[in-house]
Amino acid sequence: MQIEQDKLQEINHTGIEKHRRQFEHVAADINDVEAVLQKLSVFNIAIPSWALGTGGTRFGRFSGGGEPRSLEEKIEDVGVIHALNRSSNAISLHIPWDIPENAASVKELAAQHGLHFDAVNSNTFQDQKGQQHSYKFGSLHHTDKAVRQQAVQHNIEVIKYGVQLNSKALSVWLSDGSNFPGQLNFRNAFQNTLESLQEIYEALPADWKVWVEYKPYEPNFYSTTIGDWGQSYLLASKLGPKAATLVDLGHHLQGTNIEQIVSLLLMENKLAGFHFNDSKYGDDDLTVGSINPYQLFLIFNELVEGMDARGMDHATGLGWMIDASHNVKDPVEDLLQSVQAIKIAYAQALIIDKDALTAAQKNNDVVLAQEILQQAYRTDVRPLVAEAGLRNGGALNPVAAYRKLKVREHLIKERGLNTVATGL
Amino acid sequence: MQIEQDKLQEINHTGIEKHRRQFEHVAADINDVEAVLQKLSVFNIAIPSWALGTGGTRFGRFSGGGEPRSLEEKIEDVGVIHALNRSSNAISLHIPWDIPENAASVKELAAQHGLHFDAVNSNTFQDQKGQQHSYKFGSLHHTDKAVRQQAVQHNIEVIKYGVQLNSKALSVWLSDGSNFPGQLNFRNAFQNTLESLQEIYEALPADWKVWVEYKPYEPNFYSTTIGDWGQSYLLASKLGPKAATLVDLGHHLQGTNIEQIVSLLLMENKLAGFHFNDSKYGDDDLTVGSINPYQLFLIFNELVEGMDARGMDHATGLGWMIDASHNVKDPVEDLLQSVQAIKIAYAQALIIDKDALTAAQKNNDVVLAQEILQQAYRTDVRPLVAEAGLRNGGALNPVAAYRKLKVREHLIKERGLNTVATGL
Amino acid sequence: MQIEQDKLQEINHTGIEKHRRQFEHVAADINDVEAVLQKLSVFNIAIPSWALGTGGTRFGRFSGGGEPRSLEEKIEDVGVIHALNRSSNAISLHIPWDIPENAASVKELAAQHGLHFDAVNSNTFQDQKGQQHSYKFGSLHHTDKAVRQQAVQHNIEVIKYGVQLNSKALSVWLSDGSNFPGQLNFRNAFQNTLESLQEIYEALPADWKVWVEYKPYEPNFYSTTIGDWGQSYLLASKLGPKAATLVDLGHHLQGTNIEQIVSLLLMENKLAGFHFNDSKYGDDDLTVGSINPYQLFLIFNELVEGMDARGMDHATGLGWMIDASHNVKDPVEDLLQSVQAIKIAYAQALIIDKDALTAAQKNNDVVLAQEILQQAYRTDVRPLVAEAGLRNGGALNPVAAYRKLKVREHLIKERGLNTVATGL
Amino acid sequence: MQIEQDKLQEINHTGIEKHRRQFEHVAADINDVEAVLQKLSVFNIAIPSWALGTGGTRFGRFSGGGEPRSLEEKIEDVGVIHALNRSSNAISLHIPWDIPENAASVKELAAQHGLHFDAVNSNTFQDQKGQQHSYKFGSLHHTDKAVRQQAVQHNIEVIKYGVQLNSKALSVWLSDGSNFPGQLNFRNAFQNTLESLQEIYEALPADWKVWVEYKPYEPNFYSTTIGDWGQSYLLASKLGPKAATLVDLGHHLQGTNIEQIVSLLLMENKLAGFHFNDSKYGDDDLTVGSINPYQLFLIFNELVEGMDARGMDHATGLGWMIDASHNVKDPVEDLLQSVQAIKIAYAQALIIDKDALTAAQKNNDVVLAQEILQQAYRTDVRPLVAEAGLRNGGALNPVAAYRKLKVREHLIKERGLNTVATGL
Repeated sequence: MQIEQDKLQEINHTGIEKHRRQFEHVAADINDVEAVLQKLSVFNIAIPSWALGTGGTRFGRFSGGGEPRSLEEKIEDVGVIHALNRSSNAISLHIPWDIPENAASVKELAAQHGLHFDAVNSNTFQDQKGQQHSYKFGSLHHTDKAVRQQAVQHNIEVIKYGVQLNSKALSVWLSDGSNFPGQLNFRNAFQNTLESLQEIYEALPADWKVWVEYKPYEPNFYSTTIGDWGQSYLLASKLGPKAATLVDLGHHLQGTNIEQIVSLLLMENKLAGFHFNDSKYGDDDLTVGSINPYQLFLIFNELVEGMDARGMDHATGLGWMIDASHNVKDPVEDLLQSVQAIKIAYAQALIIDKDALTAAQKNNDVVLAQEILQQAYRTDVRPLVAEAGLRNGGALNPVAAYRKLKVREHLIKERGLNTVATGL
Repeated sequence: MQIEQDKLQEINHTGIEKHRRQFEHVAADINDVEAVLQKLSVFNIAIPSWALGTGGTRFGRFSGGGEPRSLEEKIEDVGVIHALNRSSNAISLHIPWDIPENAASVKELAAQHGLHFDAVNSNTFQDQKGQQHSYKFGSLHHTDKAVRQQAVQHNIEVIKYGVQLNSKALSVWLSDGSNFPGQLNFRNAFQNTLESLQEIYEALPADWKVWVEYKPYEPNFYSTTIGDWGQSYLLASKLGPKAATLVDLGHHLQGTNIEQIVSLLLMENKLAGFHFNDSKYGDDDLTVGSINPYQLFLIFNELVEGMDARGMDHATGLGWMIDASHNVKDPVEDLLQSVQAIKIAYAQALIIDKDALTAAQKNNDVVLAQEILQQAYRTDVRPLVAEAGLRNGGALNPVAAYRKLKVREHLIKERGLNTVATGL
Repeated sequence: MQIEQDKLQEINHTGIEKHRRQFEHVAADINDVEAVLQKLSVFNIAIPSWALGTGGTRFGRFSGGGEPRSLEEKIEDVGVIHALNRSSNAISLHIPWDIPENAASVKELAAQHGLHFDAVNSNTFQDQKGQQHSYKFGSLHHTDKAVRQQAVQHNIEVIKYGVQLNSKALSVWLSDGSNFPGQLNFRNAFQNTLESLQEIYEALPADWKVWVEYKPYEPNFYSTTIGDWGQSYLLASKLGPKAATLVDLGHHLQGTNIEQIVSLLLMENKLAGFHFNDSKYGDDDLTVGSINPYQLFLIFNELVEGMDARGMDHATGLGWMIDASHNVKDPVEDLLQSVQAIKIAYAQALIIDKDALTAAQKNNDVVLAQEILQQAYRTDVRPLVAEAGLRNGGALNPVAAYRKLKVREHLIKERGLNTVATGL
Repeated sequence: MQIEQDKLQEINHTGIEKHRRQFEHVAADINDVEAVLQKLSVFNIAIPSWALGTGGTRFGRFSGGGEPRSLEEKIEDVGVIHALNRSSNAISLHIPWDIPENAASVKELAAQHGLHFDAVNSNTFQDQKGQQHSYKFGSLHHTDKAVRQQAVQHNIEVIKYGVQLNSKALSVWLSDGSNFPGQLNFRNAFQNTLESLQEIYEALPADWKVWVEYKPYEPNFYSTTIGDWGQSYLLASKLGPKAATLVDLGHHLQGTNIEQIVSLLLMENKLAGFHFNDSKYGDDDLTVGSINPYQLFLIFNELVEGMDARGMDHATGLGWMIDASHNVKDPVEDLLQSVQAIKIAYAQALIIDKDALTAAQKNNDVVLAQEILQQAYRTDVRPLVAEAGLRNGGALNPVAAYRKLKVREHLIKERGLNTVATGL
């Protein structure tokens, strides 16, 4: 299944006049709108291979129709997303759910869709069939060296797959932790994790990075061995310059000021990138921007400000990826909504009057600082996002186009109603 | 597999002297210790049929060995628990995971183990094979009447199974809710739920109750249609005297004062009973008393005080049940630990000096009120619990006896290493 | 100090052209924009008398300059706010901080500013000089009947002041609760509160209401006697039709779905109204819409939908009031920002395509429901709010006008730099 | 006011027989009970000077009677506490609330009560009369260098007072933060804080430490500049070996695993010590062990294990201090309850069977690990604590003795009913 350009252009055509009017209206008040469009047009967010099927919870899973049955079909789906939004030019693989049997042909297929491969993800939170040692009590932190070694070897294998696909980073999320007081010696667990990561670090190619994710709880409910940014930072510091901290927006205790963490990690040059999603409680994995879009904007405010302060390239300086679970939505539509929300937040952050904000901060003019942020946030920047997509050949409104093109109906016809993609 | 009484007595024998010394020590300071023992000895907590296998999370499930493969084997396992602790004389079935094909023989088997059947539980949070309508978007609250009817009929069927087993209550937990703002009209969802429950209520036999559980989130992460005690209470009030609110300890937002809710529901005669477990974050389903045993004690303080104020029988006045998920423990051991923790909390609540506490409360003598509670809580009441169990023919130390009797090894031999029980 | 109309018009004049362009742009896409403007133009949010001075925390208070030294000066300040935003035509008094010595002259002064008096608020959370009994251990819930009686009499006195000012509601917030387990008998505390409220209820004039606020914690940190909406609802139900539940946005545990509570209270005809503010942790009393503006919008979505379903008048059907603490901002600027945020959220809720939303909900089209909500939320509705204010004689941009008119400088000149208003 | 030894002994005498019986009972099952008693008897927890008066909240303060009116009277009160519990041999001063005008005489007075001076605490969260620059917008993180310098100088002055009193540590808690998004540049705030702390660090005498406290929110409700352990650790690392992180139990987001943080800070040699209290919500400053005593035990488990692993002396290796607010209790009674709760938790941690626990952890025997911890926790160790106190000349039951000795009545007679001590 591939988006037919002429049909897409036809759909765009019906809305183009209204779009022009709206774009010109918002552009009129923006200083150097072309610079903003330029930044928007090169900004891409990777799609994880496991996000293309319907997710579930421990209480059940309700599959949708036409889910991808293979890595190739997942690449096709990301191709559809990218054709519509022109902002998802990479796919992030999860091993062993998506082992590329033939790297060359997989790369070629991806290239046909304008895609490349982002970070590769290891999995030591589930047991695979035939696996010698169980991860029931953890992996890189395990008390038994044999289990740790198995997990280290798995990560090294994942790097090898990644090298074949021209990935440049290994993303490590551990579920290692404990459910009950007394279960773990925290110090030993930390030291074991560090040693395991050091072995993996040694196996990294010269131009690779390792991204160390943190999470406070779930699937363990008393402690997680890499539980917060401080613990991830401590590990990343001890590992060396190739290691940095990955921020998943849902991996925080309620009330955490995530934007402050982002700012400080950038300051210390230890921010690897993001797993984007939204949440009201814990790791709810909801559509980005569906619960608290202002927080997303505040994070992008810190990103733009902090990356500019370091002279980093916005598009390539950090890793950008969705990580959500689409339990009650069509996964493709959900991903289109997520990318749209990210681009809106990014566009809003780009049009903040930074000089005025800096001056207000220096003067402790709190009211004015808020006015400046909200001036940007309350602006309807959707025409900017649409214009950037349009110039790249994408859809004016990706979700609407997806529906008008009846993509899901086509996928169901191709793949059947009762397919189940690998993933959570 | 049944516990052999002579072997159990032998194990008890080795610890009996020490127990005597400890019991006499603690008994010396308790006013009417026999009354306390009497209450402890008739206090039972039901075991849910789904708690006898190893649980899991959405990230994976690591099965143990010797898990029960049928309802009959589950009854056997509860029989083992009850033989050891003499405090688990009932089993609570979950339909459709545990449909009793032959009620008479199932009842007979249970009776052989000294067990009867507690509340029956319906399940409309998962789709079963061959089911006409999906519960993807809810059941009793669904926008489509056909789906609601299907769910109502399922509940009525569950009541029928329960009647055959001499159960006296239907326990309803709904996962109905929404993941995203806008998904639901809250009012309609509530009204649909009410109407559906009214139909179920009509189908209740004269001596039955319906227990309405609440939960703030999971598996839906934006709203739950019966989300807190107030919403459950509102439904139970509108339904009538056979309906009451079931409290699952893990179904609260962080910081909720559960003991206050318990006190008020008792005051309004709308407390149905409990699903016991413990948690540090959300519905973690950890072993009772493993995270915050003082809170458990405070809840029992309210229960004892409130039930006495209404002249209720402690053992039978409310429904008592474990609801936990044993991801990293042997389920039987975990259940033994949970029941032990409940009995300890109950014993501590029984020895509170109520008259002194009432006086301190009247005088707003906050320091003294705390001293009185902590005097009871800091007392080592394990010898009281052990004595009550012992007099009923149970083990002095149930977990230790279970290990010495090598029960799990026997179960694995009987059932195999790779069995997987139904449940979460 | 009064806003000079000619100066205000002059300031408006400089921005009028840009405003026209923006208004026409947004109006073009709105169905019946005049109906929206009409609703916006009659919508007012009351200002509490205690919000006009700089607030503080238990760690300190940093006063601003020119704070009002008397009730008369507070009325003047509200007059300034109303002159600028034309949406704050009422003041809510707090007794005993603002006892009106001469009701007639106070009413006349208010009328000169176009103001009337909203709900009156009692205070039994602090001891006043010369007070016979202390509220250290509570007021309406107190174990000692004499203390309860004193608190009841105070509330009746507050009603009397309110009658003189043509107020129509008594707003009751109790700090009654406990700091430690054991301190309170929850049932007795609830029953005492109910009896006390019943006495107050009896004293209400025929056309009055009593609004019962709830709060989970602070200043008591173990329990609050009216701790959640369920407890407030229970009291309001037992009291009768004149009693309803007041929702303060900051009075919830983290993660509470406030909009669902709003919807259900409206359904039960037990929603009294709002204390607006925003928060990241607890009762932080921050500027409305400064932390999570999307949540505010979702609440207004429920309000508009629920009030329309009952045929209620938006402007007068419920009580609307700010309740925030302006620790680091000029209180007048902060209140202007808060009212602006409320009107923006209200405007966004008014332009939701309700028919489409209802249809999407019926079809469980979760993606579309989100698109519909976000279509309204992402619209820049500030020109609508500005146009409504402008037509009423207000400022295009109230905060900017306040600064250009140098109001604070004038107030400091008049009142001095070191005044401290009564309040928290 | 000083405790009369003969009266105290008389009171002890009436309970001594029962105590003997209880002590012997519990001692019989403890391996090397003398070693436990020895550790308990040298373990002291410092009393902060501000904890001797009745605290308050932003909603009000209800003073008690007989509160200390001067530093000398505060020392007297700590003397009373120490005479009763023999575990509070130090006082921690807060500058400027307790400036020692004459250090020599203050030291002498303290020595008469067997007391010395623990860490000194600076205060840059309130403005003092006559202060040149305001801390309204922070102190060490302030955008204005002049304000930072003033705050640095204040800290250096506090060190000077401390030197006179033989204190060995400066404890720094900053309220610096922001209430609104946009108010602060997080990076600049962090860097300013670091530079300010470096200046203070330079002023430390050779044998001094600086303890850097963290807190997530309050009195600022959007961000705190030293908001979590990671941020404090980052500062302490950059400062050098004299700097370490102070843990206040109430300064964490809900759900934080504090014991894990303690373990890791000990591992990194960056744990300074503790401010003990308990809480259900935020920085509630409740009596230690009044809400979740099991958590306190788990923290002491990590402390004992981690200090032993480093060969640290329990009594002197870290800083131990109460930090609570006694709003509804007699402060002295509250402090006695807090110290008692700490000693109970410490005693329970001391009797954990460490070898068995280590083995269970190695085997991932989660059930057994829990049994081992709970075996210690469920033991009634009060007789051990009492015996240690008794041998040092203290009271068998400090709170009961305080009441029998009518200490508060004496203090009121001496000092009056309406005294108000400095503090929060």
